Amino acid sequence: MTATTGENNIVKDDDLPGHSVRLGIDEPLRLDCGADLQNFPVAYQTYGTLNEDKSNVIVVCHALTGDQFVAETHPLTGKEGWWDHIVGSGKTIDTDRFFVICSNILGGCMGTVGPKSINPATGKPWGLDFPVITVRDMVNVQAMLLDHLGIDDVFAVLGGSMGGMQVLQWAASFPDRVFAAVPIATAARHSSQNIAFHEVGRQAIMADLDWCGGDYLAQGKNPNRGLSVARMTAHITYMSESALHRKFGRRLQDRKEITYGFEADFQVESYLRHQGITFVDRFDANSYLYTTRAMDYFDLASDYDDNLANAFKDTPTRFCVFSFTSDWLFPTDANREIVHALNAVAANVSFAEIKSDNGHDAFLLDEQEFIRVLGGFIDGAARHRGLPSRGGDAS
Amino acid sequence: MTATTGENNIVKDDDLPGHSVRLGIDEPLRLDCGADLQNFPVAYQTYGTLNEDKSNVIVVCHALTGDQFVAETHPLTGKEGWWDHIVGSGKTIDTDRFFVICSNILGGCMGTVGPKSINPATGKPWGLDFPVITVRDMVNVQAMLLDHLGIDDVFAVLGGSMGGMQVLQWAASFPDRVFAAVPIATAARHSSQNIAFHEVGRQAIMADLDWCGGDYLAQGKNPNRGLSVARMTAHITYMSESALHRKFGRRLQDRKEITYGFEADFQVESYLRHQGITFVDRFDANSYLYTTRAMDYFDLASDYDDNLANAFKDTPTRFCVFSFTSDWLFPTDANREIVHALNAVAANVSFAEIKSDNGHDAFLLDEQEFIRVLGGFIDGAARHRGLPSRGGDAS
Repeated sequence: MTATTGENNIVKDDDLPGHSVRLGIDEPLRLDCGADLQNFPVAYQTYGTLNEDKSNVIVVCHALTGDQFVAETHPLTGKEGWWDHIVGSGKTIDTDRFFVICSNILGGCMGTVGPKSINPATGKPWGLDFPVITVRDMVNVQAMLLDHLGIDDVFAVLGGSMGGMQVLQWAASFPDRVFAAVPIATAARHSSQNIAFHEVGRQAIMADLDWCGGDYLAQGKNPNRGLSVARMTAHITYMSESALHRKFGRRLQDRKEITYGFEADFQVESYLRHQGITFVDRFDANSYLYTTRAMDYFDLASDYDDNLANAFKDTPTRFCVFSFTSDWLFPTDANREIVHALNAVAANVSFAEIKSDNGHDAFLLDEQEFIRVLGGFIDGAARHRGLPSRGGDAS
Repeated sequence: MTATTGENNIVKDDDLPGHSVRLGIDEPLRLDCGADLQNFPVAYQTYGTLNEDKSNVIVVCHALTGDQFVAETHPLTGKEGWWDHIVGSGKTIDTDRFFVICSNILGGCMGTVGPKSINPATGKPWGLDFPVITVRDMVNVQAMLLDHLGIDDVFAVLGGSMGGMQVLQWAASFPDRVFAAVPIATAARHSSQNIAFHEVGRQAIMADLDWCGGDYLAQGKNPNRGLSVARMTAHITYMSESALHRKFGRRLQDRKEITYGFEADFQVESYLRHQGITFVDRFDANSYLYTTRAMDYFDLASDYDDNLANAFKDTPTRFCVFSFTSDWLFPTDANREIVHALNAVAANVSFAEIKSDNGHDAFLLDEQEFIRVLGGFIDGAARHRGLPSRGGDAS
């Protein structure tokens, strides 16, 4: 099966494996920007089996360029799921015990409605006519999906980076629906530096003449060069300086001497170019604009009198917050702010700063200490919820 | 006077104020890449008066996008010189005592030969036919300029960032011509992360269709969008996260609410766009490719059996190395490597890590402690050299 539409390398929603529902049919979703979204598709995957009392649901929220293919081969890249080492039978998030749901985010490009979807009003791709969305809008769509599935509340919501923002929004918007929340390598508001890096990525996309003012799909073009540059910039921020040094140093790519030219002499150049080139095969440029913008706009406290603690007042949810020592995009300090706010309302919160050399990407990698602590938290929370413990019944 | 060629916004060498000489007339310069460069222009500025025994020369090496207009109004931007607060009558680098020379670097775009200069062989701009140059080539051109001016040796060579690389190369290549050397916020080799950021900038330029494979000048175009994105990316790396936060935070630009769009809602976006837009009025895109490449290639130890200390064996030069605490592009560790190498050969070296919130840009700003220590070093070295001290004769 080829899941691309040829020239544009853009996935047609119909070609994707997995579940898809249409939501907002009876009542549209009122977005934060004021627009209404009606009768729109949401794509999602599930792993494991929903138990009888629907008490074993884990919602996984994916990051900026992630998707719903958490624990299975990706239909476009052929690579294993982005949390395949964490989610599965007998794994830390054990699909023999839990029913895991991950939906493609609102504004995404893997089956959920976004700027590359067809605008029913025009019969053409939305493009920049798609309303600008927020992290709260994304979470509202996920809540509508759970409503649709008849699931009132969930055992746990987990996610890293922008996924972590969604976790925080879940806990703030729907405290009674979330038993446990695990925000990972994230922040309660996007920093000035992070907005700056996103803005560079957006400008790179918009600078590509093939972006066509956002109308490239209708015009049969694709701003691959701009999107590739955006991805390259972002990718540097996902790694630590020391990881880049360890992985590449100043080593040359398939040559013994520098060539005195502009080819990729250094391995790190070759690696980055590869990251850029492969990204455009699976991602939509406008979707990149919308989702980075949603992250930039995220400032949870702004809805709560600029006091983050108010977002979690009287929360019944138990939290486990993770950060990684070498993550300079969402550094420990940004995660600690969340913990401080939770402490200020006497919430049940654990905080683990994981020693790692892998930068922001650490939450996607096989970080043993992270996985061990995460497993401990999940098991402990499951006991409190009265769910069967690892390899046995509820204790 | 308009100093631009209209459509391309590119300075014609003839329009620039200041000095210009042609070098390599009798004997060409053999570049590191093996090419010969013959009869080429070098633009430079001087401040102060050369004393009788030519012992009061200070060479200032400019950074990637700097130029020779150190301490006077810039002919294109109308802004004050980039080290105007340090170089001048009665200032830290006192032009009443010293004769300061700064030349536009080889490969630059402010009067010294570079890719936008006319290739005598074709009568058209060099473009990508210009040979790829190195930091050592830049320093060799500066040495040729001093030869031309009849100056055998210099009291001091100073520079920050890529200017600091030139200072290190000066000390390594011409130890007997350099009495004192001040490398600032620099490194003896460009790091993997820094190569990565440069590569993103280059890819942004090359992704712009108006780059025309490097031939844009001949085709009457200019890759302003790509160059602007490159500048924006680089600009983020010049500031510290805390400086960005202090300067901009999440403050909005001329509005009270977010607009749910892709305009520059945040001040940091507006600021970055401005940096990008103004940069293209004074800089040549190909020149950006060549000079970033020269920095990437810089690895001083590679010419000395991969042992940096060998580059400074038996050096008679006295050094003062500076770093800034919040500089994450050329962090203290990178500067300390230089100090360690100098210590290993028992060189005369001071090292000052300046506490600053201003990131890499600190060396260009009014950093009081930096300026005070720099002044102390210059005065002390001047005494040892037998030059008149501040406000008096030689002691």
